[in-house]
Amino acid sequence: MKTLIKHATVLTMNDRMETYPDGYVLVEDQMIREAGAGECRENCDTVIDAKGGIVMPGMVNTHCHVSMVPFRSMGDDCPDRLRRFLFPLELEAMTPELVYTGARYGICEMLLSGVTTFADMYYFEDMVAKACEELGIRGYLGETVIDQETCDSKTPYGGLDYGETFIKNWKGHRLVTPMIAPHGTSTNSPEMLQKACELAAAHDVPWTMHVSEMDYEMAHFRETYQQTPVEFLHSQGLLDERLIAAHCIHLTERDMELMAECGVKVSHCIGSNTKAGKGVAPVKELLAHRIPVGFGTDGPSSGNTLDLFTQFRLFASFQKTWNRDRSLFPAAEIVRIGTMGGAAVLGAEKMIGSIEAGKRADLVMLDPDKVQMFPCYNPYSLLVYSANPSVVDTVFVDGRILVCHGALTCVDLGQVRAELMENMQDFYKKADAYRDMI
Amino acid sequence: MKTLIKHATVLTMNDRMETYPDGYVLVEDQMIREAGAGECRENCDTVIDAKGGIVMPGMVNTHCHVSMVPFRSMGDDCPDRLRRFLFPLELEAMTPELVYTGARYGICEMLLSGVTTFADMYYFEDMVAKACEELGIRGYLGETVIDQETCDSKTPYGGLDYGETFIKNWKGHRLVTPMIAPHGTSTNSPEMLQKACELAAAHDVPWTMHVSEMDYEMAHFRETYQQTPVEFLHSQGLLDERLIAAHCIHLTERDMELMAECGVKVSHCIGSNTKAGKGVAPVKELLAHRIPVGFGTDGPSSGNTLDLFTQFRLFASFQKTWNRDRSLFPAAEIVRIGTMGGAAVLGAEKMIGSIEAGKRADLVMLDPDKVQMFPCYNPYSLLVYSANPSVVDTVFVDGRILVCHGALTCVDLGQVRAELMENMQDFYKKADAYRDMI
Repeated sequence: MKTLIKHATVLTMNDRMETYPDGYVLVEDQMIREAGAGECRENCDTVIDAKGGIVMPGMVNTHCHVSMVPFRSMGDDCPDRLRRFLFPLELEAMTPELVYTGARYGICEMLLSGVTTFADMYYFEDMVAKACEELGIRGYLGETVIDQETCDSKTPYGGLDYGETFIKNWKGHRLVTPMIAPHGTSTNSPEMLQKACELAAAHDVPWTMHVSEMDYEMAHFRETYQQTPVEFLHSQGLLDERLIAAHCIHLTERDMELMAECGVKVSHCIGSNTKAGKGVAPVKELLAHRIPVGFGTDGPSSGNTLDLFTQFRLFASFQKTWNRDRSLFPAAEIVRIGTMGGAAVLGAEKMIGSIEAGKRADLVMLDPDKVQMFPCYNPYSLLVYSANPSVVDTVFVDGRILVCHGALTCVDLGQVRAELMENMQDFYKKADAYRDMI
Repeated sequence: MKTLIKHATVLTMNDRMETYPDGYVLVEDQMIREAGAGECRENCDTVIDAKGGIVMPGMVNTHCHVSMVPFRSMGDDCPDRLRRFLFPLELEAMTPELVYTGARYGICEMLLSGVTTFADMYYFEDMVAKACEELGIRGYLGETVIDQETCDSKTPYGGLDYGETFIKNWKGHRLVTPMIAPHGTSTNSPEMLQKACELAAAHDVPWTMHVSEMDYEMAHFRETYQQTPVEFLHSQGLLDERLIAAHCIHLTERDMELMAECGVKVSHCIGSNTKAGKGVAPVKELLAHRIPVGFGTDGPSSGNTLDLFTQFRLFASFQKTWNRDRSLFPAAEIVRIGTMGGAAVLGAEKMIGSIEAGKRADLVMLDPDKVQMFPCYNPYSLLVYSANPSVVDTVFVDGRILVCHGALTCVDLGQVRAELMENMQDFYKKADAYRDMI
């Protein structure tokens, strides 16, 4: 099965950042067979005319809690919401069915916005994996490990056992890569962090954790160990090349040296971090240390939308203003972080993240006729400063067309929402107990 | 002619910030006749079922250079672009036709995003007024006055004469309010600023100017007068209640005292300011001084998109992070700035900005079925943290429906783009001379 996309502005995002202003991409089965400038004379089953629109690699969301859709718009401006109502309500009201239907909804939202791969940290992660398999998105999925009772474990750290089984069940899947996900540096004992790290090593899968995000986390390590969280992790032998550290807002130069030395990768969640007033991660410095950085949306409760366009625009504005330099992070570099950057964070840079022969066909084609996308002197500028999810026309994951003309091809969004709403009835009732905060 | 919008989540944005979760708005001719909770039994010509969607006042964009659409995505990350290629290319290539067709395109973009009123500063402002009149948007339009040759005046300060005629021609128009617009504090002589101020006073119209925006502007006043631009304007008697000061990034406490004392209003352009790495205006402090503040998109070359949703999200993130306080500027307050705040900046708070009986019917109805708009615990949160222009379903200006189901009702966008592209042929050629920067 061969599909040709022609007359496209192809942003390859390869090492040379090649762009073909009137180019093509040839997809064969699950793979990109060829991309180039001008015409392709191959006989194809399907030909798609991009009409000059941008074709880019699928975007990679390196940090999410996708099943938290039911929490969206709840107490967004409430201080300390994690401990005041998010954790308690999660414990009371999240069920496997709600994780499943929430994930389905959130995955639809990501696909519609051109995200073709995401990394997740949550509970009942089997349900998220099932949703990925059904809907056809690529998922890097980590079961949460935490020092408290959770919705899927009566005892603290139940995620370790769940996670081990989860990894065994899903390892080698075409779309799903299992991970293990200790919640945070201060919400796990050092022993349990060790176990999670060992589990990842034993099965050769990534692990992911919130690192240097919270003020109370920073204070805890300062007061208990006179160290930063990163220094502490390093002292315990817990920094390794499998670790995807999410957030990393509060880093010292020494932290970054240690992270670079040990091959740690970073998921940067600018939207979530700044909406919470937490701060701006030192991405310029991380990249100077050659630490791979990708964008993460965080969950729909923290970041609200699951698209990367929002992250692009916020990132540009924050980095340029933080560093008082308009020329810092030109648009093409921001798009690189959202594609190849994310792929490298997940250790998937050989498989996805760019349009190159031999990579999986994860592609996004944009509608050139959307009002804010004209004129085009620089397609990267349009992606960073003009685009929003509504410009996405067509999305391929692993060679399958999952979005066409801005609509899902394999599932009805109204139906997915109806199923989620049905599962949310009990959730709404329980949420009502927190109504003074939300 | 009566139109009823029923089953709406009505955000009135009135003084009490009343919200009707299942409410209605009754429009009669150009006016809002009534808004309330529950059902309305009035016999109407047209009934629109909002199906639970948000209905809010039309958004007010308090600072724009709408005709600069041809410059969008050009050299976005280039330092000092104003002097290096924007001013020169504007001088060489802007024609009345290009101002007109650019304005038509930009106005379509604003209407599609729910902006029903905008303030503009540019050249050939008659052409912008004509576009407003034809397309039905509300415009506060100021001809630029500047100490250099421009595309519409061979001699410096030609805008003063043009502006006077423009004001006389358009004063009292149903949709267009003429203004005069000295470009900036340091791009006009004190004498000419005086003349602009007097012109505004003589005709009782607003005047608008870029204030405390540029580093070189700040340095100029520091070095020449040992004053801030605002102190200088005050010393010349140039701060008055007709002045809409755009940007105001670099303000001192004393500046704000003077501005408050004299009744100056502020257009805050967070997207444009931060994309350029210029800084973050002290909006918390401005509001503490009771200085009216509205949002401005700036031109499509500086702010890139002309919608306020982008400003909402950037504003929330920047203010919360700058002040390290998640609870600062809760979402409802941000929506207030984008509606009533903007109306007050334009001195139009009795006419527009809220849904109240007796105001002009400038309304926006959102599509509740867009993926990122679910669930809804707080409609303001959805507007600030989830929405983008694609959620806009229906737009009324002055009682006329200009957007329906996300499409323009009175004009074909493809046609508007085709006309603009035809007018851009010569512009493209001239822009090519700057290709190393863009």
